[in-house]
Amino acid sequence: MEAPVKIESLSADECRELLETREVGRLAVVVGGYPEVFPVNYGVVRDRVVIRTDPGLKLRHARFERVCVQVDELDMARRTGWSVLVKGIVHELKEGDRHAEELDAAAARIRPWAGGSRPHILVVTPVSVTGRRIVPG
Amino acid sequence: MEAPVKIESLSADECRELLETREVGRLAVVVGGYPEVFPVNYGVVRDRVVIRTDPGLKLRHARFERVCVQVDELDMARRTGWSVLVKGIVHELKEGDRHAEELDAAAARIRPWAGGSRPHILVVTPVSVTGRRIVPG
Repeated sequence: MEAPVKIESLSADECRELLETREVGRLAVVVGGYPEVFPVNYGVVRDRVVIRTDPGLKLRHARFERVCVQVDELDMARRTGWSVLVKGIVHELKEGDRHAEELDAAAARIRPWAGGSRPHILVVTPVSVTGRRIVPG
Repeated sequence: MEAPVKIESLSADECRELLETREVGRLAVVVGGYPEVFPVNYGVVRDRVVIRTDPGLKLRHARFERVCVQVDELDMARRTGWSVLVKGIVHELKEGDRHAEELDAAAARIRPWAGGSRPHILVVTPVSVTGRRIVPG
């Protein structure tokens, strides 16, 4: 038998702090009624999640759409971990947007894995931020 | 400057092989128009993805719904990795279902992290399986 574990809900502050500890998350969009999930490099500024991406599928289907960004850290050996879920509305950052310079600067600090110039910057404005942690019981 | 990298599409066979190398993925469901993503323990049998879960949100919103299961392996240091996306229809496994015993046996081999008896077994029947790999350019 596995040792019992407990699932705890995380506060909004805990979620925010955990989001800032990672740099890779998963962006989910809805395409034709199906969710699709992609690993993305992200940063956090003013509670928004900033993503640098190439002009592919993610972008075409992600203009002012409902999306989520999920970030976790799972310890396979100790079987513990946490997961934070940011549900929100995505848009592409444009010059003149509110806080555009600050968001742009945050995006510039992101080191995208998948190379290329990745000129497109997506901003997810959160509607809800929830999270949970698995701890020894 | 980062070294250039290349994104390659994976064949269906490669996706299938990679899925079998991992035991934790992310299940995405659509709730109220928003995607939601949760880490899950999974197994693969007859091209289906089998998930053991507790009777929570994931289940309430995941009866014959469109979902996806995303699995990846990302090497933070070498900045390489792969991601496989299984889009499909989810249902809860019931006695008498086609291949029920085989699916049930696969579920029994899954060691769920989040403890509890996790009596619910979800089966995702794929509609499409796609994947990509990031490799040095």
